[in-house]
Amino acid sequence: MKVKVSRKEHFNAAHRLYNPAWTDEDNRKVFGKCANPNYHGHNYEVVVSLTGTPDADTGYVFDMKKLSDLVREHVTSKFDHKNLNLDTDHFKNLNPTAENIAKVIWSILRDKIDKSLDLKITLYETERNFVEYPAD
Amino acid sequence: MKVKVSRKEHFNAAHRLYNPAWTDEDNRKVFGKCANPNYHGHNYEVVVSLTGTPDADTGYVFDMKKLSDLVREHVTSKFDHKNLNLDTDHFKNLNPTAENIAKVIWSILRDKIDKSLDLKITLYETERNFVEYPAD
Amino acid sequence: MKVKVSRKEHFNAAHRLYNPAWTDEDNRKVFGKCANPNYHGHNYEVVVSLTGTPDADTGYVFDMKKLSDLVREHVTSKFDHKNLNLDTDHFKNLNPTAENIAKVIWSILRDKIDKSLDLKITLYETERNFVEYPAD
Amino acid sequence: MKVKVSRKEHFNAAHRLYNPAWTDEDNRKVFGKCANPNYHGHNYEVVVSLTGTPDADTGYVFDMKKLSDLVREHVTSKFDHKNLNLDTDHFKNLNPTAENIAKVIWSILRDKIDKSLDLKITLYETERNFVEYPAD
Amino acid sequence: MKVKVSRKEHFNAAHRLYNPAWTDEDNRKVFGKCANPNYHGHNYEVVVSLTGTPDADTGYVFDMKKLSDLVREHVTSKFDHKNLNLDTDHFKNLNPTAENIAKVIWSILRDKIDKSLDLKITLYETERNFVEYPAD
Amino acid sequence: MKVKVSRKEHFNAAHRLYNPAWTDEDNRKVFGKCANPNYHGHNYEVVVSLTGTPDADTGYVFDMKKLSDLVREHVTSKFDHKNLNLDTDHFKNLNPTAENIAKVIWSILRDKIDKSLDLKITLYETERNFVEYPAD
Repeated sequence: MKVKVSRKEHFNAAHRLYNPAWTDEDNRKVFGKCANPNYHGHNYEVVVSLTGTPDADTGYVFDMKKLSDLVREHVTSKFDHKNLNLDTDHFKNLNPTAENIAKVIWSILRDKIDKSLDLKITLYETERNFVEYPAD
Repeated sequence: MKVKVSRKEHFNAAHRLYNPAWTDEDNRKVFGKCANPNYHGHNYEVVVSLTGTPDADTGYVFDMKKLSDLVREHVTSKFDHKNLNLDTDHFKNLNPTAENIAKVIWSILRDKIDKSLDLKITLYETERNFVEYPAD
Repeated sequence: MKVKVSRKEHFNAAHRLYNPAWTDEDNRKVFGKCANPNYHGHNYEVVVSLTGTPDADTGYVFDMKKLSDLVREHVTSKFDHKNLNLDTDHFKNLNPTAENIAKVIWSILRDKIDKSLDLKITLYETERNFVEYPAD
Repeated sequence: MKVKVSRKEHFNAAHRLYNPAWTDEDNRKVFGKCANPNYHGHNYEVVVSLTGTPDADTGYVFDMKKLSDLVREHVTSKFDHKNLNLDTDHFKNLNPTAENIAKVIWSILRDKIDKSLDLKITLYETERNFVEYPAD
Repeated sequence: MKVKVSRKEHFNAAHRLYNPAWTDEDNRKVFGKCANPNYHGHNYEVVVSLTGTPDADTGYVFDMKKLSDLVREHVTSKFDHKNLNLDTDHFKNLNPTAENIAKVIWSILRDKIDKSLDLKITLYETERNFVEYPAD
Repeated sequence: MKVKVSRKEHFNAAHRLYNPAWTDEDNRKVFGKCANPNYHGHNYEVVVSLTGTPDADTGYVFDMKKLSDLVREHVTSKFDHKNLNLDTDHFKNLNPTAENIAKVIWSILRDKIDKSLDLKITLYETERNFVEYPAD
């Protein structure tokens, strides 16, 4: 049976929800206060989970210190204290919903981690709103 | 691959564990202090999770504000500051264990949410006791 | 300079807010859903804090294991899985608001702990509602 | 002896730290990534604490439901899903550091609450950065 | 559909990560500061989850009080305030990584719980590092 | 009125409670399982609080990023993944109770921070055991 190891990291960012194909009024109707043109923000918590077989010599599925370094280098250092809509390429043409942020983080990390390990992202936008990708 | 979105809501309620087919002594033997005839209570936290494909226009699997409204209208407003055994129809003939409360909440919400979305309930009775329905 | 040591314990109880000198309607008007005649409940967290000078031999202001035992023996074992209004003498004639519960716990413990140590109670009724007695 | 009652509320906002009297380079030097011109954001938690004597009839220092309503009406509804620098009058000419946000919230609420009650604000910018005003 | 019930317990222990087949230098290279010869330690939180069908008479998948007792008797009383490497038989020849601790706890409990119930262990080494066994 | 700013940092360490002037039996009698000769450990959380007047130009009492750097350089990097009794000079002749650890951290930092700012340390040994120095 396999083991899943998880590391939680965080970043603080501004964003707004917005579909450029719609009028401002329609954006406000669909996204409510999340469409505020001047942005709002969150303390995001991101959990990166890897599933695999522990190595016989180390007892590690994956060194969590290295996992932390990987997430900080490729994800949180790019998003932390940024405006997701304006300061990142990933959300230039993609609405930064929690769902889409989780998918983007998964795509960034999937290339950096051996394919023998399953990868899953859990993203907390607030303590009460969170998403998982891929779903179990 | 699908995305799971989750919203956490809360309610504060009294309850007791009790099987009316048994003697008081047997109830005390099985349920211990949870059988106290004068009830005790909890700050319940309920996580409602929906799994599906994000909408191409919104980037949402489900609008979490609407999910919050739905849970508040149909679940937490009915259970909050209530005695689950005495003040609700659901537990008139059903023992309000965490397992059964989760199943009742699932049944209430299943009718209100499109069948294309998987529905899962996680119920925290305390920080250290919690249940999930359906199990993964 | 002195050191303050704190131990957090918990109990789960039912209660209702109610002034017997008032009509049911007035109780409902003042206490809202907290006046529900069939009770509701909470997972209470109680922090007991003692301020004093660490002992030269032990480095302790007070042994936290003994503080935990004291709180469990005299407070949480009496209130846990109980109805505060019906099952305890303390709230037979006293409204079990968070303020009053904190004062009662303080009174119970004040006699059990040497007067050279300052005693303070912090009571969480929920994660978002809490009281401290005495105030700093 | 008096009792302190506290209510925790939350709001999600964007902000940047910036002194308009300085060059952009100086702002970057002093405020680091917090000076990002496109803003970043936080899930703020605000604890409002009132110290006084419990009322003999209610057992309340202050009704926490009313305290919650007051904070939501005058504070969090004004700041939630807003850009503190652009969308509020309070920070048009005041740098929205945690210190200043706490002082502004104190000023807003001080007028709404009877002077017989001491008022204190605790503001969490993140789980690890927080401020209190006034200091004990 | 089945229900999963979970109970969270805790223990405080010292450990070091170390492969006796390697030189000290290699251990330091692979395990970093976790290889410190004089040990370091953690507040471990262990979640034990059982999946099954609630009993018709009790509404329980498994009595969480009994689950707590079982985990305390067979796991946490053995590991709490111990040095995992020196004071336990389980890690005499097994590196006490979070992955291996979770597997050991699973093995200890699997014999004590009816095979009709699925068993899963989640182990938090810190709030930000945790593992699950078996992975979903 | 002054503002108090706080920064929370963490370290994971092993320790044992022990008075070398006593027999092993007496140590066991007084410190219980905390006297285990092979050590145990904790995830310590340390909150460093500074009270002062916000600077007119920055709005800061103290830059929390700099406070974090200071605590990491002088405290947590010295204690993290260490055995407090064996690997640090501070506890060679001082019992590493929570009370004494808090006092040591205060002494280390007091020299590094301007005397115009009040300094207070809050140390969490576990989520349920914590100390403050100096007491309010």
